[in-house]
Amino acid sequence: MTMTTRDQTFQDTAQALGYSFDGELKIGGHYSPLVRDGHTLYISGQIPRVQNEVVVTGRVGTDTDLQQAQLAAQICTMRALALVQRELGTLDKVRTVLRITVYVQCAENFTQHSEVADGASHLLSRILGDAGTHTRTSVGVYQLPKNASVELDMVVSECPELVAHSDSSTHF
Amino acid sequence: MTMTTRDQTFQDTAQALGYSFDGELKIGGHYSPLVRDGHTLYISGQIPRVQNEVVVTGRVGTDTDLQQAQLAAQICTMRALALVQRELGTLDKVRTVLRITVYVQCAENFTQHSEVADGASHLLSRILGDAGTHTRTSVGVYQLPKNASVELDMVVSECPELVAHSDSSTHF
Amino acid sequence: MTMTTRDQTFQDTAQALGYSFDGELKIGGHYSPLVRDGHTLYISGQIPRVQNEVVVTGRVGTDTDLQQAQLAAQICTMRALALVQRELGTLDKVRTVLRITVYVQCAENFTQHSEVADGASHLLSRILGDAGTHTRTSVGVYQLPKNASVELDMVVSECPELVAHSDSSTHF
Repeated sequence: MTMTTRDQTFQDTAQALGYSFDGELKIGGHYSPLVRDGHTLYISGQIPRVQNEVVVTGRVGTDTDLQQAQLAAQICTMRALALVQRELGTLDKVRTVLRITVYVQCAENFTQHSEVADGASHLLSRILGDAGTHTRTSVGVYQLPKNASVELDMVVSECPELVAHSDSSTHF
Repeated sequence: MTMTTRDQTFQDTAQALGYSFDGELKIGGHYSPLVRDGHTLYISGQIPRVQNEVVVTGRVGTDTDLQQAQLAAQICTMRALALVQRELGTLDKVRTVLRITVYVQCAENFTQHSEVADGASHLLSRILGDAGTHTRTSVGVYQLPKNASVELDMVVSECPELVAHSDSSTHF
Repeated sequence: MTMTTRDQTFQDTAQALGYSFDGELKIGGHYSPLVRDGHTLYISGQIPRVQNEVVVTGRVGTDTDLQQAQLAAQICTMRALALVQRELGTLDKVRTVLRITVYVQCAENFTQHSEVADGASHLLSRILGDAGTHTRTSVGVYQLPKNASVELDMVVSECPELVAHSDSSTHF
C-alpha cells in the first residue's frame, strides 16, 4: 500500500499548476499573513500572486474568463495552505477548514462566483481529504488590490494532536 | 401561561413568509453548508433560494426594491437557521449569533444596506429572542451567485448545556 | 522611565485626528456593536461616523482620494477600539487582533485597497503595539451604507489575565 501525505499532494499540485510556493509569500501591506488563536488559524486575504507577479488580473467575464478565475482561486488557496504548512510544520495537522471567503472581481452580469470558488474547494478536498471540508461564501466585488481577479481568505482549525491520515490520497 | 418555543416561532415565521424550509437545502458548489468547531458553528453564504428557485434576484435599487431585498435577507436567515436547527436538533440550543455578514447586490447609488440587513436582524430577534443578539456587517457588492439580490453568512455559538428559554415568545 | 499606556495613546490619537470617540457610538440598525464569545470579541462593521455625521463619503478614486480613504479607515478603527475599550475597561487587555476586513467603496479602476487598509493597520500598531498584529482582507465594493467610503469590521482576542505592557509606547 502506498500512502500520499498531504504535504506530498501539496507539492504535486504546485508542480501540476506550474508554480512554486516555496519562497517568501509577499504581502502588500502592514499586517501579518497568519495569526493563531489557540487552535484556530486566521489567514489574511490572498491574491493570486506568485513571487512578484499577480498572475491573474482583470474583471472576470470581460477581461478574463471562468477558467482563469478558477486558476486564480487555486493559487490563492495554495498560498493560504503554504502559510498554514509553515505555521504547523505539516498540513497533516489541519483538523478542518472552518471558512473560506472568495471575492471575485467580476463583470456586471457575471454570476458564476460559485463555479470560480469551486476551484478552491476542489483543491482543498484534493490536498486535505476529509479535513478539507469547509463552509464557503463567494461574492462578486467591484475591484481588488492590484487588479487581482480573485481574493480569498480562510479560517483553519488545527488538530489538538497529530494522528495518521490516509485521506489525502483522494484524487478527483 | 403559554410559551412559544423558538422552533415553533421558526415554523410560524416560515408559514407567514409562505415558504417551506423542510426539504433539502440545496447549495451550488463543492463545500459544506455548516461546519462545527467546538461550540462554534460556521454557516456558508446563503442566497434566497427556496427549493430550486432563487426567489429574489437582480440589483437592489433598479431591478428590485428595498422591500424585496428585506424579504431576500429573511429567506437567507431562515435557511441559515434551518441548518443550525438540523445540526443542534433545536434552536433552543443557540447561545448567541456572533456575526452575520450581509452582501447586497445593489445599484450604484443605493445606500440602504443597513435597512436591507434589518430584515435579517428582526427575524433573529423574533425567533431567538435575546440569543438573536448579533454583530453585523452589511455591504453593497457588484454581483452575487445566480444573480441573487442578497447573500448572508453567519457564525453561531451553541449553549454548552440546554436550559429552558422563554425569551422566544418576544414579538415585534 | 515614562510609559505611555495604550489608553493614553488612543486618546492622543483621537486628539491628533481631531475627533472625539467619547459619546454614544451610533449604529444604523437593529443589532449589537459588539458580541463577546469567551475571550473572543466580534465587532460590527464600522463606518467613519463621528456623532451624527459620516465624515468621509463617496467613491474612492473619483469622489474622494486615497488620503481621505485612509482617514476613513482610521476613524473606523478608532470606533472599533472605543467599543473594545468599553467592553474590556482598558485596551491593555487586548491580546491580539485576529482579523480586520476593510471594504472600500471604490472607482472601477481603483486598486489601492491595501494602501487604504494600511491606515487602519498603522493605527493598530501605534496604539496596541505588538498586540496590534492582525490578519487583513481588503476588497473594493460597489456601495456602502450611507455612502461611506470605507467600512471595517474586526475580531479581537482578549488576554486571559492582565499583564503590564510597555509596547504601546511604540511610535511611527
